Amino acid sequence: MSGILNGMRVVEGSAFVAVPLAGMTLAQMGAEVIRFDRIGGGLDAGRLPVAPSGQSLFWAGMNKGKKSIAVDMRSERGRELITQIITAPGEDAGLFLTNLRVRGWMDHETLSQYRKDLIMVTLTGDRHGRPQVDYTVNPALGIPHITGPQGSADPVANALPAWDLIAGNLCVSSLLAAERHRLRHGVGQDVELALKDVAAATLGHLGMIGDAVVNADERGKAGNALYGAYGQDFVCADGKRVMIIGLTDRQWRGIVKATGTQAQMQDLSTRHGANLMDEGTRWSLRDDITAILKPWFAARRVAEFAEDFNAAGLTWSEFRTTRQALAYDPDLSTENPMFDMLQQPGLGTFPVPQSPVQYSQMRRQAAQPAPALGMHTEEILGDIVGLPDREISKLFDLGVVESPAFSAVRPAA
Amino acid sequence: MSGILNGMRVVEGSAFVAVPLAGMTLAQMGAEVIRFDRIGGGLDAGRLPVAPSGQSLFWAGMNKGKKSIAVDMRSERGRELITQIITAPGEDAGLFLTNLRVRGWMDHETLSQYRKDLIMVTLTGDRHGRPQVDYTVNPALGIPHITGPQGSADPVANALPAWDLIAGNLCVSSLLAAERHRLRHGVGQDVELALKDVAAATLGHLGMIGDAVVNADERGKAGNALYGAYGQDFVCADGKRVMIIGLTDRQWRGIVKATGTQAQMQDLSTRHGANLMDEGTRWSLRDDITAILKPWFAARRVAEFAEDFNAAGLTWSEFRTTRQALAYDPDLSTENPMFDMLQQPGLGTFPVPQSPVQYSQMRRQAAQPAPALGMHTEEILGDIVGLPDREISKLFDLGVVESPAFSAVRPAA
Repeated sequence: MSGILNGMRVVEGSAFVAVPLAGMTLAQMGAEVIRFDRIGGGLDAGRLPVAPSGQSLFWAGMNKGKKSIAVDMRSERGRELITQIITAPGEDAGLFLTNLRVRGWMDHETLSQYRKDLIMVTLTGDRHGRPQVDYTVNPALGIPHITGPQGSADPVANALPAWDLIAGNLCVSSLLAAERHRLRHGVGQDVELALKDVAAATLGHLGMIGDAVVNADERGKAGNALYGAYGQDFVCADGKRVMIIGLTDRQWRGIVKATGTQAQMQDLSTRHGANLMDEGTRWSLRDDITAILKPWFAARRVAEFAEDFNAAGLTWSEFRTTRQALAYDPDLSTENPMFDMLQQPGLGTFPVPQSPVQYSQMRRQAAQPAPALGMHTEEILGDIVGLPDREISKLFDLGVVESPAFSAVRPAA
Repeated sequence: MSGILNGMRVVEGSAFVAVPLAGMTLAQMGAEVIRFDRIGGGLDAGRLPVAPSGQSLFWAGMNKGKKSIAVDMRSERGRELITQIITAPGEDAGLFLTNLRVRGWMDHETLSQYRKDLIMVTLTGDRHGRPQVDYTVNPALGIPHITGPQGSADPVANALPAWDLIAGNLCVSSLLAAERHRLRHGVGQDVELALKDVAAATLGHLGMIGDAVVNADERGKAGNALYGAYGQDFVCADGKRVMIIGLTDRQWRGIVKATGTQAQMQDLSTRHGANLMDEGTRWSLRDDITAILKPWFAARRVAEFAEDFNAAGLTWSEFRTTRQALAYDPDLSTENPMFDMLQQPGLGTFPVPQSPVQYSQMRRQAAQPAPALGMHTEEILGDIVGLPDREISKLFDLGVVESPAFSAVRPAA
């Protein structure tokens, strides 16, 4: 193993997207990440999509390269074990990620009695601690009202859990920042962030709050257009759809040149007394620009212009389904060194991504499968909690912990 | 200043969303972040939304709390200055973030000749170095085909630049991870990631690649439904729309209880010989479930059930435009300690977010405005490059650098 975070140990008590992604991102950077779950699996153990076997492809994707321990946390002994794992010694340990807010035994106040410099990162729903998920935060803040066909009144939600993915990544950097500070100053931290705050802050970062406050026009839906400059989708003669970007001046000049529409664009400028080299003008005249370009794309198959567009350095792409992308786009195959083909029991064989980040002085880490639930229970109890074998066997017998190996040899209940 | 990254200095050469967001996130954590731009501003200097003055609300949002220097990089002297700023000494400096891939003077090979342990994080479009933006990566990988109304064939693009936001956050953690490694091993890094790879890896993390490979049914559009379990939007008697979540068993039982639909749900289970406590069953029977719940919501105003839903701990929200959220949701106001009301010259007065992350041992950092372009030019040339005042004046006179203060006193050209 040659990951950039080698030596770091992180414990994760989590479910769903954001915090599992945070732990997985750290694991893909080389940290030892221990996810604990209740016996039988956490809230996301069966999350769709699932393979024909019924096993969760989602869970496998979100827990790649982690160690798994399954513990009965309703039992006093189980809670003690989790506490010991979270607060185990080690300069590069004492790092805990969670979105399971448990008052009492698993809060920062209690845990830090066992390890004073514990860093705990907790993601909540909203700042009041109320439950919120990506699917509620998004409509509460207005994104579905700016998504979808121009003129339509129906809000359209994201299919991608974007806020979870953003918040998960922010959990990673918050943890790394707190660990950096601990190394210098010796202090632990109770780190908190709320999914809804992450989304609300992002609206501010994008200028959307200022826009809503200081401008009279409410931002509406714009179909598949790139907001604020020019970028539009077109259907071509072969029925394929492409997206073409004229965000920068260079991109815009490239489109006009490649489609030979200089005279028509000049005419459009003259009619409106407007300068299309201004991105805001391109945005306000986007429907007129699209009307000029539409016949050009409608008359051509993608294969007729793809090479020219690439040679000219245009920014564009085809619309594809994920299945089509897997069939036709080498970036979504093992031609891309980010992907390894893995055969995973109960799931199937398909390309599995490593970290998208490459460090020049580190070797790429091969993609890892997710563990079976509880697979590292024995190892963790031995190496981290420091229990003797006899004690570990007793815990299995009592049902305080569970592992696939133990289930396999145990007589059915 | 009491930020968790105090003492760290990061230099940023960037435009648009991802890398500016990365620098801003580090600045909100307390790092000194210096963004350099060409004279007159970078590619995103006028990005929409803009205030009535024409000044960019987007730029202001993405560059909060940074220092700004404006340099003519077409000149040899300008390139030397940028090189010196990026490679200036300091244990917690030598950190460079960019999405402007410039071969030669600004690549890692050249820059690391001046500072051997330089850490440079470069975000590219795709792994081949070709231009890609959020708006092209998203359709290339299939998200628009799973977004929008069930049954519709038209792809719907994200209005939110989700991939940029995710990639920007990953730039932050990549930089922090590389800096952590440098502190221990003394080595710099050339860190690279591509926007398209970030998106492709995420599809893998979410289980979408496995799903597309091992399952026969292609994932389609599902309107505003929560994928894979139960969650749906409903229009209420007052015309308001709400999103209600039945992802976990507890959430699901809460919905059934709050709406008093136990008998109808039981009947639905019996008719299909299915168990609605299984999340996959809720997903496959979602249209039947929605038909049962629809009349309940259609007969009630939100105000009639909001308190009960909150008291029962249900996960739900109203759909609002950003403007409505600003008017009615305290989380998007200065009642939320994350927001400060700032009056910004040329932009207006509106709530500006700090970092959404709170550290128990650090004070919250007040929200900072973005600098005017070039505002810190003189300070940076003096303090970091170490130039005497006379030399700095000469650079202004020659037009190698620029600042608002200097423009104000200079006779018009």
